[in-house]
Amino acid sequence: MDIREKVAMLSEEIREKSPLIHNITNYVTVNDCANAVLAIGASPIMADDIGEAADITAISSALVINIGTLNRHTIPSIFEAGKRANEIGIPVVFDPVGAGASLLRNNTSREIVENIKLSIIRGNLSEVSFIAGLEVSTKGVDSSEADSTKYDAVDIAKSVAKKLNCIVAITGATDIITNGKTLVKIKNGHKMLSRVTGTGCMTTALVGSFAGATDDYLTAAVAGVASMGIAGEIAYEKCGRIGTGNFHIAIIDALSNLNSDTIKERALFEVSFD
Amino acid sequence: MDIREKVAMLSEEIREKSPLIHNITNYVTVNDCANAVLAIGASPIMADDIGEAADITAISSALVINIGTLNRHTIPSIFEAGKRANEIGIPVVFDPVGAGASLLRNNTSREIVENIKLSIIRGNLSEVSFIAGLEVSTKGVDSSEADSTKYDAVDIAKSVAKKLNCIVAITGATDIITNGKTLVKIKNGHKMLSRVTGTGCMTTALVGSFAGATDDYLTAAVAGVASMGIAGEIAYEKCGRIGTGNFHIAIIDALSNLNSDTIKERALFEVSFD
Amino acid sequence: MDIREKVAMLSEEIREKSPLIHNITNYVTVNDCANAVLAIGASPIMADDIGEAADITAISSALVINIGTLNRHTIPSIFEAGKRANEIGIPVVFDPVGAGASLLRNNTSREIVENIKLSIIRGNLSEVSFIAGLEVSTKGVDSSEADSTKYDAVDIAKSVAKKLNCIVAITGATDIITNGKTLVKIKNGHKMLSRVTGTGCMTTALVGSFAGATDDYLTAAVAGVASMGIAGEIAYEKCGRIGTGNFHIAIIDALSNLNSDTIKERALFEVSFD
Repeated sequence: MDIREKVAMLSEEIREKSPLIHNITNYVTVNDCANAVLAIGASPIMADDIGEAADITAISSALVINIGTLNRHTIPSIFEAGKRANEIGIPVVFDPVGAGASLLRNNTSREIVENIKLSIIRGNLSEVSFIAGLEVSTKGVDSSEADSTKYDAVDIAKSVAKKLNCIVAITGATDIITNGKTLVKIKNGHKMLSRVTGTGCMTTALVGSFAGATDDYLTAAVAGVASMGIAGEIAYEKCGRIGTGNFHIAIIDALSNLNSDTIKERALFEVSFD
Repeated sequence: MDIREKVAMLSEEIREKSPLIHNITNYVTVNDCANAVLAIGASPIMADDIGEAADITAISSALVINIGTLNRHTIPSIFEAGKRANEIGIPVVFDPVGAGASLLRNNTSREIVENIKLSIIRGNLSEVSFIAGLEVSTKGVDSSEADSTKYDAVDIAKSVAKKLNCIVAITGATDIITNGKTLVKIKNGHKMLSRVTGTGCMTTALVGSFAGATDDYLTAAVAGVASMGIAGEIAYEKCGRIGTGNFHIAIIDALSNLNSDTIKERALFEVSFD
Repeated sequence: MDIREKVAMLSEEIREKSPLIHNITNYVTVNDCANAVLAIGASPIMADDIGEAADITAISSALVINIGTLNRHTIPSIFEAGKRANEIGIPVVFDPVGAGASLLRNNTSREIVENIKLSIIRGNLSEVSFIAGLEVSTKGVDSSEADSTKYDAVDIAKSVAKKLNCIVAITGATDIITNGKTLVKIKNGHKMLSRVTGTGCMTTALVGSFAGATDDYLTAAVAGVASMGIAGEIAYEKCGRIGTGNFHIAIIDALSNLNSDTIKERALFEVSFD
């Protein structure tokens, strides 16, 4: 079965299973993340107090860690929840939002990578480059630019994937998803996605949602990234010209209507193997 | 005057009085709650720091406590605000989001019930069952399923209402609102409401808004629950087929247009007495 | 060049420069603020932990401080970030949300005014009156009423502007912006803006965005306030009758489409000099 068929099938399975997805995330885009998770067919729960983070992880099918508004009160919760997720064997998806932008984010990102077994990392080129140990200069959290001339996204993704034995997804004009050997390039999406806050965070929440519904994390990562890309295309067609407000809402609409047929029709995947 | 007329009248009074509603709530659905409160004609304020929680309660007409993203920094604020609300005699509305899902939520819910005189509790069957002291298994915060085969919602609602001498609202396919004797069943609503995060939280914020405009808390609870149900129906008719994004926005639209005529036309109430 | 032309030009420059705007703000309206900043052409970052607040300020072009959900964990971050902003010479924009409503907000507002060199203050009449040292009674954070009979907005704005040597913007039916001498009155806007939470916060975020793109803070303040007013008018024309949900989304749409032509056509400015 090829990746397109696997993703299409997973998009139906997730609606049957409706996995509970524990998100320790930021307060800027959290509502969109919850609605994206619901739209795709999973069930969100947000809990970041140290008094319940591990307990909530224990009843969940996946844990998503997003450091968009990192703060010292929830950092211990991230590690407690991560530890529990590793113990019970559910996937941990990490979004290193703004890694490279401050010492706090840099140090916390490093500690997460070193102490929690991650299943999937999803970020932009700049953020994943930081995880790869490269010097980066970040311009905010909604930037997906980074020094695309300086580093090769495929090389960086593969090296991080091999080093951490996980799936790496670098999203941008062309999305790159790899387990270190198999490489999936996705050409879906629309540049207007960068004009709405939270499309990156939502992508990670979708990746986490799919990871909660399958053991095949490469397919889960491709499904999550492709879902946002396809939803962005449909949203742009429907109301890109109206403005970013309606475009934002149309993304959620498109996610809520996404099914295996839409994916088969629209997915622009390019697969290669080392 | 029957309940339908009381609710219709209250829906006009709230717009004249525009009561200030203090919400100590979660960061996932807080924007929707604020907009729902404004849409229905009240005025929201969110303040959860221990340094001002009681002060803000003191200038408000109702206090809404929602434990959706409970954390140790705001738990003391809940008790300070609740104490002040009880002292000055304004209603306290409690939404035990996710009660049953973690020890932190369970213990805090119990302490709230034991230490704050509540006017109204609004939750799904699973959450209110927990408050009733029953064993429950919760699947996330957007679930309204619970073991409907195992427990009878009416029995649970009445027993909690009598025990705590307050109004209890259990929302679901059929909503149940009771003061322990009078029972109001509401058949408004649409199942798509469960595909948008925060419709439960918004319902509680609406209940709190109405409670800030009347001393008749049974009517306030019915008004809040019915408003969301009716808004959900209207929103579905207008754009349920577009997707959950537009449906979400249409809920706020419908709330902002809600008036006594809409309520009289659409309300599906069934009243019985012990 | 008159103010209308300056604002029109700035509305184009901001999209070229895309300044990074650091927002220490509240969790109620933060998503709207981020989307408003993006819509107008700037880039938002939200970071309020003491461990990174100053670092993030250091890479930003402006700092926006909003005390809408003030809490003791981020108050020190406000001062660290403010200090850094003053050191590196980037503008600090302050929104004293709810000043007058609690001792915590009052004391913190006073300390901010005394310890951080502010470039622009944006609030409603009640909030700015508090900053001016007048006795005020506040009714929530979405109120723009205040005792307009008791105090004269122009006098208050000018006195605060002179005392603190900054730009002061008081928004209301007629917006007032002054540096203490030059006075700009703006008659754009629509009363429906008060029925959506966060339009004040978004206005301040827009002011901060423009301040990040120019050294002329009077023009930046006028640009931010006028952008929201014009967006409100356009949003009302497009879907004011649908309800406050769609109106809310249409505000972001209008901001994302705003350009120098729209501003030249619609801006209702009245300028006077002392």
